[in-house]
Amino acid sequence: MPSEIRNILADLPPALSGEVVDTLAESDSVRIERIVSNGQATPQGEWYDQERNEWVLVLAGSAGLLFEGAKGPQRLVAGDCALIPAGCRHRVDWTDPSVKTVWLAVHFAAKPKP
Amino acid sequence: MPSEIRNILADLPPALSGEVVDTLAESDSVRIERIVSNGQATPQGEWYDQERNEWVLVLAGSAGLLFEGAKGPQRLVAGDCALIPAGCRHRVDWTDPSVKTVWLAVHFAAKPKP
Repeated sequence: MPSEIRNILADLPPALSGEVVDTLAESDSVRIERIVSNGQATPQGEWYDQERNEWVLVLAGSAGLLFEGAKGPQRLVAGDCALIPAGCRHRVDWTDPSVKTVWLAVHFAAKPKP
Repeated sequence: MPSEIRNILADLPPALSGEVVDTLAESDSVRIERIVSNGQATPQGEWYDQERNEWVLVLAGSAGLLFEGAKGPQRLVAGDCALIPAGCRHRVDWTDPSVKTVWLAVHFAAKPKP
């Protein structure tokens, strides 16, 4: 049976004390998450360095995504997406403090299609 | 290196002569697609019956999603998502003919997480 239909833009958590991550679907090879941010950023000097690829899409709000070695963060708004390959060090430089930023993230095994 | 940032809600194709499917990211275990519809529906009497799970999210527009055995289609609007398990027969009953409907679809292997 299919899952119930759920609206991931409705009833957003306040996310005042930290990002709120919800797993929307998951298998052994993939995890689909909704992340709600409210002004949070990756702690200064810290980087994400992940074993799996991550494809991200901003659904609402805005955020700055910084890749190691880049001149500065890239601004993402609703509809903007990026593929962050496994091992590509990156950080969330900022998220909009005045509205909730909603991300969709798809984590999946790094092995590329042959 | 990360991919270029792309906005998947900008510069939408007209999709007048059929749905337009773009692969946004892909590995051996997952495929992430953007699908733009403009009034299209699954041909009457036909059903999708897929070997992989499909997680769908409507980003813009609206659509009716019908699962075999259900009383009628369920209306999906922006933010609505559903997991369609492998082998779950379904069809797109309608998409809004007056605006473009933008779907995000994540196809992934059916094996559930143990």
